Amino acid sequence: MARETLVVIGAVAAGMSAASRARRRNPQLRIIVLEKGHDVSYGACGLPFYVSGEVSRADDLVVYTANYFREKRDIEIRLGHEAVSIEPGRKIVHALHGASQPVEIPYDKLVIATGAAPVADIPGANLAEVFTCNDLANAAKLREFLDSRKPKSAVVVGAGYIGIEIADALAKRKMEVIVLSRGERALAGFEPEIQSKMEIAMDARGVHLKPNSAVTQITASGSGDGLQVHHEKGTESTQVVVLATGIKPRTSLAESANIRLGPTGAIAVDERMQTSVNGIYAAGDCAETRHLVSGKPTYLPLGTTANKMGRVAGDNAAGGHARFAGIVGTLATKAFELEAARTGLSASEARAAGFHASSTTIHSFSHAKYLGGKPLTATLLWDRASSMLLGFQVACEHGAAQRVDAAAVALHARMRVADLEFLDLGYAPPFAQVWEALLIAAGGAMKAAKRS
Amino acid sequence: MARETLVVIGAVAAGMSAASRARRRNPQLRIIVLEKGHDVSYGACGLPFYVSGEVSRADDLVVYTANYFREKRDIEIRLGHEAVSIEPGRKIVHALHGASQPVEIPYDKLVIATGAAPVADIPGANLAEVFTCNDLANAAKLREFLDSRKPKSAVVVGAGYIGIEIADALAKRKMEVIVLSRGERALAGFEPEIQSKMEIAMDARGVHLKPNSAVTQITASGSGDGLQVHHEKGTESTQVVVLATGIKPRTSLAESANIRLGPTGAIAVDERMQTSVNGIYAAGDCAETRHLVSGKPTYLPLGTTANKMGRVAGDNAAGGHARFAGIVGTLATKAFELEAARTGLSASEARAAGFHASSTTIHSFSHAKYLGGKPLTATLLWDRASSMLLGFQVACEHGAAQRVDAAAVALHARMRVADLEFLDLGYAPPFAQVWEALLIAAGGAMKAAKRS
Repeated sequence: MARETLVVIGAVAAGMSAASRARRRNPQLRIIVLEKGHDVSYGACGLPFYVSGEVSRADDLVVYTANYFREKRDIEIRLGHEAVSIEPGRKIVHALHGASQPVEIPYDKLVIATGAAPVADIPGANLAEVFTCNDLANAAKLREFLDSRKPKSAVVVGAGYIGIEIADALAKRKMEVIVLSRGERALAGFEPEIQSKMEIAMDARGVHLKPNSAVTQITASGSGDGLQVHHEKGTESTQVVVLATGIKPRTSLAESANIRLGPTGAIAVDERMQTSVNGIYAAGDCAETRHLVSGKPTYLPLGTTANKMGRVAGDNAAGGHARFAGIVGTLATKAFELEAARTGLSASEARAAGFHASSTTIHSFSHAKYLGGKPLTATLLWDRASSMLLGFQVACEHGAAQRVDAAAVALHARMRVADLEFLDLGYAPPFAQVWEALLIAAGGAMKAAKRS
Repeated sequence: MARETLVVIGAVAAGMSAASRARRRNPQLRIIVLEKGHDVSYGACGLPFYVSGEVSRADDLVVYTANYFREKRDIEIRLGHEAVSIEPGRKIVHALHGASQPVEIPYDKLVIATGAAPVADIPGANLAEVFTCNDLANAAKLREFLDSRKPKSAVVVGAGYIGIEIADALAKRKMEVIVLSRGERALAGFEPEIQSKMEIAMDARGVHLKPNSAVTQITASGSGDGLQVHHEKGTESTQVVVLATGIKPRTSLAESANIRLGPTGAIAVDERMQTSVNGIYAAGDCAETRHLVSGKPTYLPLGTTANKMGRVAGDNAAGGHARFAGIVGTLATKAFELEAARTGLSASEARAAGFHASSTTIHSFSHAKYLGGKPLTATLLWDRASSMLLGFQVACEHGAAQRVDAAAVALHARMRVADLEFLDLGYAPPFAQVWEALLIAAGGAMKAAKRS
């Protein structure tokens, strides 16, 4: 009897997690990974640090090489192979390799981990000095341009956390940086008090945020070098543009197999990461997941979630019974020496999900002031009707992410605000407060609940 | 009608939390705080940093002064007033002030926050060069001795977290430091892998830990300056000794009122912090609390818990209905540039409490290696019978405490190991890992559970 074959499409976080887990689950399985690019298993979240130069070589971001997977895990990685369609009836993937005719690759089980593509639909986005920075290939192009041409000025389009991280990376290279935001604020999805802290941190490092400045067109300067970025509020002259205007799930391959997309536009999967087609799984930035606070399908493409979904997809594709229930919306970033982190729903997300969302913001310190504790701002979101915790956000120089983790666990456990006030959290003067921000904010929320 | 009077005995963490909360709850109440010493509301956890000199003035550790409480919160603080007995029948506290006769102080409600006293029952403990360091007064004496006499060598007796913190403080003063441990290891109550990390950190800074070296006697050197510390394994010559041999709850005052002590030897209280005598509350290091993992009374005197107990005692003494269910055993420390933190039960505590405790230790990193991530060791304790999480311990240069907090919340929520593997924790390369230590350890525990 022929060996069963698992084909994985995509070789970054979700794809390689799936392949690796499948190998551990089933040593007999034949595992083929198709990757249209030439990079595998790299930490995409580290790309801004490669752009800044803090990480000198792209290879430093690679967790394991293709050869490692081939030799140590018996996984056939085929680089430069682009899957172009799936025939579920025949269990065949059609793939292109170079200029050759499509080849047919038969599978027994299939994992789709095609990731997401940058949204770059601005006229002029194809100009040579306009970059995106969502994978190793395009980050490398940007880095090469910066190293060789040494531009003095940059415009970052988009003020979400990725745009902010890239702006920080460029500012570290001593460039003049302007960030154009379509909306009012930096750091979309965060609460105003947290956004404000990041805006102040940007400003302190000379990075100029322009709100309500959706870009309409990018054109080459008349002089020949440089660009004009036209937006709702005016025009910026600059030497390089980086687009950080979001990403969208790559679903065309799934659609070729009539796999159902969810309400978010990403591939719909169940808790086992199976798509609407039996034997075909999806994981990572191409797929949606469930938000455990709202209970609704959500699209929040992050490396952490991609790894988990990949592991579960690979486990099940290899005969296991793993489940991934979903996320609570945890996201952390660091830029301009400020950590900002959130978990759960934002106030507007909570209202959209039908909650009676209230928010309580407190100002405290990262640790004992007599040991140099830094200011900390935290916003707690809670439901007036049920007193349930809905979310928690923190901005601070140190420890924002791990502080939010405690609240993330509380969201997984569906805790109420009253359950939080006396949580037994760790304290010592060099790194915490006797009353940690989560406890203070919970106390504040309880007081507000009594007043209302 | 006369105003109701609340008397609080003790003016540090629990006492001043109680007085402050009582004032907020009831603006009409008369509040008297009796303090036998002369310091109020200071951060005792900061004492090692005062000893090291990192905190230059003792006043820097004081959160609020006595005058602040008098003027801003209308709390009558009587310094140098030692409560010597309680007559619950007449609702009277007898207190000494200087050489005068005892005065009678009537109360309607009483909060006992007498704290804990160092265990210093070694022959020779009363020598002038032998110190304890558990309150501001004795820490100030030690600091003055170090500043004026500039001793070159010290012996710390006791290798619990307090002994380790003091050893670190003395080592920062460029002193030769020996730590004598009664037991095998440094950092009692932690798991061996975590203890080992702290021992290595001590050793790297030239501090010498001597295990199984219970001290039998301290004597003055024949030469006139210096001490001989005699222990099970030999004798150390040194210029100063600091005893960190534990603390015991101060219960004699409570016993004078026939208030019941619990099985731990500390004052027994209910969830409202009421003692066995109606209208008399106890809070802080003189009282025991419930361990929410074992379900049993426990004595773990810490500032965090003292503040919570004080707040609840003060609230109820002023007519409120607050409750404090208990702790999950969270404790964090930093010494020798290493953070060590624990929550829940240790393996031996878990076995003593009747659990089938297993432990899983993993080695990971604080954050991305390409950004200088530091080694991290974590031990997860879990119950083989129920798969419940029992505890989590972390040692790392950065972020040990906040990492343990996520597990502390999981303990409050009584989560199982399977609930932890896919927790949605925050990640970004400068401060975390895609698979955080708690998730890796939970995965390891689940694998071990399947094998067993």
